[in-house]
Amino acid sequence: MDVSEFREFGKAVVDHIADYWESLPNRHALPVVKPGDIAKSLPSKAPVKGEHWEEILKDIDSIIQPGLTHWQSPNFHGYFPSGHSFPSIVGELLTAGFGCMAFNWMGSPAGTELEITMMNWLGQALGLPQYFLNCDEGPGGGVIHGSASEAVLVALLAARDKTLNSFINKQNGVRRSNLRENLVAYTSDQANSCIEKAAKIASVTIKQLKTHNCQLRGSTLRDEIFKDKANGFVPCIVIATMGTTGTCACDCLDEIGQICKEENIWFHIDAAYAGSAMICPEYRPFMGGVELSDSINVSPHKWMLVNYDCTATWFRDHRYVIDSIGVKRVYLDDQSSEYGIDYHNWQTPLGRRIRSIKLWFVLRSYGIEGIQRYIRNHVALAKYFEQLVNTDSRFEVCSSCMGLVSFRLKRRNSLTELLLKTIIDDGKYYYTPYKIGNKFVIRFAVCTRITKSEDIKNAWNAIVDYTNTMQWDLNGTHNGFIKSI
Amino acid sequence: MDVSEFREFGKAVVDHIADYWESLPNRHALPVVKPGDIAKSLPSKAPVKGEHWEEILKDIDSIIQPGLTHWQSPNFHGYFPSGHSFPSIVGELLTAGFGCMAFNWMGSPAGTELEITMMNWLGQALGLPQYFLNCDEGPGGGVIHGSASEAVLVALLAARDKTLNSFINKQNGVRRSNLRENLVAYTSDQANSCIEKAAKIASVTIKQLKTHNCQLRGSTLRDEIFKDKANGFVPCIVIATMGTTGTCACDCLDEIGQICKEENIWFHIDAAYAGSAMICPEYRPFMGGVELSDSINVSPHKWMLVNYDCTATWFRDHRYVIDSIGVKRVYLDDQSSEYGIDYHNWQTPLGRRIRSIKLWFVLRSYGIEGIQRYIRNHVALAKYFEQLVNTDSRFEVCSSCMGLVSFRLKRRNSLTELLLKTIIDDGKYYYTPYKIGNKFVIRFAVCTRITKSEDIKNAWNAIVDYTNTMQWDLNGTHNGFIKSI
Repeated sequence: MDVSEFREFGKAVVDHIADYWESLPNRHALPVVKPGDIAKSLPSKAPVKGEHWEEILKDIDSIIQPGLTHWQSPNFHGYFPSGHSFPSIVGELLTAGFGCMAFNWMGSPAGTELEITMMNWLGQALGLPQYFLNCDEGPGGGVIHGSASEAVLVALLAARDKTLNSFINKQNGVRRSNLRENLVAYTSDQANSCIEKAAKIASVTIKQLKTHNCQLRGSTLRDEIFKDKANGFVPCIVIATMGTTGTCACDCLDEIGQICKEENIWFHIDAAYAGSAMICPEYRPFMGGVELSDSINVSPHKWMLVNYDCTATWFRDHRYVIDSIGVKRVYLDDQSSEYGIDYHNWQTPLGRRIRSIKLWFVLRSYGIEGIQRYIRNHVALAKYFEQLVNTDSRFEVCSSCMGLVSFRLKRRNSLTELLLKTIIDDGKYYYTPYKIGNKFVIRFAVCTRITKSEDIKNAWNAIVDYTNTMQWDLNGTHNGFIKSI
Repeated sequence: MDVSEFREFGKAVVDHIADYWESLPNRHALPVVKPGDIAKSLPSKAPVKGEHWEEILKDIDSIIQPGLTHWQSPNFHGYFPSGHSFPSIVGELLTAGFGCMAFNWMGSPAGTELEITMMNWLGQALGLPQYFLNCDEGPGGGVIHGSASEAVLVALLAARDKTLNSFINKQNGVRRSNLRENLVAYTSDQANSCIEKAAKIASVTIKQLKTHNCQLRGSTLRDEIFKDKANGFVPCIVIATMGTTGTCACDCLDEIGQICKEENIWFHIDAAYAGSAMICPEYRPFMGGVELSDSINVSPHKWMLVNYDCTATWFRDHRYVIDSIGVKRVYLDDQSSEYGIDYHNWQTPLGRRIRSIKLWFVLRSYGIEGIQRYIRNHVALAKYFEQLVNTDSRFEVCSSCMGLVSFRLKRRNSLTELLLKTIIDDGKYYYTPYKIGNKFVIRFAVCTRITKSEDIKNAWNAIVDYTNTMQWDLNGTHNGFIKSI
């Protein structure tokens, strides 16, 4: 494909995406496909001869799009937002168009320095402590990771090796035997699965501590640390959550931070979703205690209009990261390292593209005020949904925070489970389940940039309709499962 | 930004990229910037009000582009190719435009099934063993990872935990104390830095074994395993390389594979760069022994025209991966998992975008034959460069394989070091250094899709010119360093 064909193809795909977005309000969230359907409609081998782009684009229409779950449809309320905006995806295109790698300064000076600057912009916009910023004089700094999974893994690795090294130093170069096996990390039973996965990867025991109202409290943590230390375990990190996946709960950051400080334990905050809301000053009380933290991650690819992948992570002292996972090679030896930052040593892979361009495009296109409007609108829409649920006495709201509401039918779990199954089988709307204690709930997240209050109203009306149908079933004869309630 | 503005902005950026590509043949590989220059030209805070896209795009021209190292310039010969083609970046744009997550089947049925199919297409096109393919009946399968770094990490984790679990099973549920600390992984002293990093992350001791002609031989490995086992160490994986970063050397895969089989050790092949050449049947002898491997990774984002990130990884038995890093949550519980694949359990992060679209676009636009032409052309260009080096008796070719040649001035290392420094300081061309034994060499990689034989000729002529200037310096008075040779 030569440059002139690219101009045609690229512009056709821009129009294709624009058309897709115009169609989104009318799209069902879920596709009508069974496992295997799409694979069956694709040839079993790659073509020998090249094909024209128009042929390929046709198959996007006929095969791929009908098989997508439409995360950007205003009928999609599952998980959390999958960040999206036009400036962001144009930024992604530009990054891909340049085709530069940015693992060290020399690899892409502009890539590295734009990232350094964007992490300052974002850190300031969120009201993070000054010590986290690249522009601060200390050893703190920010980096763009692929996702919260990578951010918590890197924090865990830095904390793990900081702890191991401190034991070597204390004992004249000899490490206590079995120390590695006795390391322990803490998080809550509400923490995202990526924290459990990070602990598996890093080979560190993780304890998912019991929560109250889905929040990890200081007293729970303190008791556990006391017990563990008495049993010879060595605490190395606490990973608290601001905005859990299940209910957007926020651990008691100030209590946890205080304990970590007293016990000299690394304190990380996973604020993947709710962190973006800190751009609005009225939500900053949520992160009281952040000034005690050693690292924090916020994912603009969730709730700040940046497309996946873009997680912003800050460290109080980035040197622990380099001590843990930094590597040296003659071919990576960067003359300019003494002045700049070689970001490959701040992350798990070696390679990296310039993800700062899309963040830059979003911050400039929207401005701080535009992003604040976006966040506040989502919170207001969630509040509206909560009010609607409260109008129907068959339902109860089980949690409501930021852009996430969870609710259920008041009676036994199987009713709510059936309601969710009915909704998903129908396919117009998509919600994801959660369990709060023993209660099975449906999560309702405001997800897309184009969601309007009438979409919320329609979604609620549909829930009522589905429920009424189920009640008909309840009095009918063909569903023994329902009858037994 | 509304849809109609996106149409304008997106198309303007398509043209911007096209113009950039038309300018590439005349661009110097390196920018003229000092560390800090670019950061200084950016505001210190994010704007409060949104800006028009035309303002933003202007700054790409005036701030970002002048600060890029142009990896796609035909004067860039550093590292390895950073994969690029127009179909690939349009695929990237489309993926971003859809804004879907594909961590489980339900999240994006088309995303998952296109990936399953692409991994079959690619595995067949490269002549990999049938047992690796998703379409095979066994437990093998392929997945797209972010990079070779992730691929080797996942293989290492699977092997680590398989080994640990086998010791638990043998001893009635009790694990041998200190087992984790006694695990050992093997690779060569030529292996990519990402393997050392993976071992740090996974907390497994890695031995970088001595090579002969940059190749790891079976006898070296066998001796080391024998010694280690006698000392109570437990080997868990050998990570061999097909196409090392330094010289594109290939470890003795058949010998290594045989030993791994006898010793019941996981055998992984990192074929990040050279693996793509297996699309040409004449290079398949390079991977003799692959039929003994448990996993292999090839990076289409290096040498198969796909833009970063896209590493293809296959496992003989993917269940070991899930046993090692799989996680379960009620909100990830996918009704369709029993039929399909939930790829989040095959990778280190939870999130994932649909990277299969860009691979699909490349395979279809080029066809197998188009990619074969691209690979063969790179190899021919490297051969041409090698011939040019051999015309000048001051130089020696130190290695030549696939699209990579390394060379040096025959006398002491400091001369070659100075030559490289002279070239990089001038900025038109970019090469990266390496050390083969005690010899400091310059790596010359054929990197871009648009590199022509006249670019190779010009690059060589420039090297001769730089060297002649240095010789003038040698006879001059102002450079004590050179005079002392």
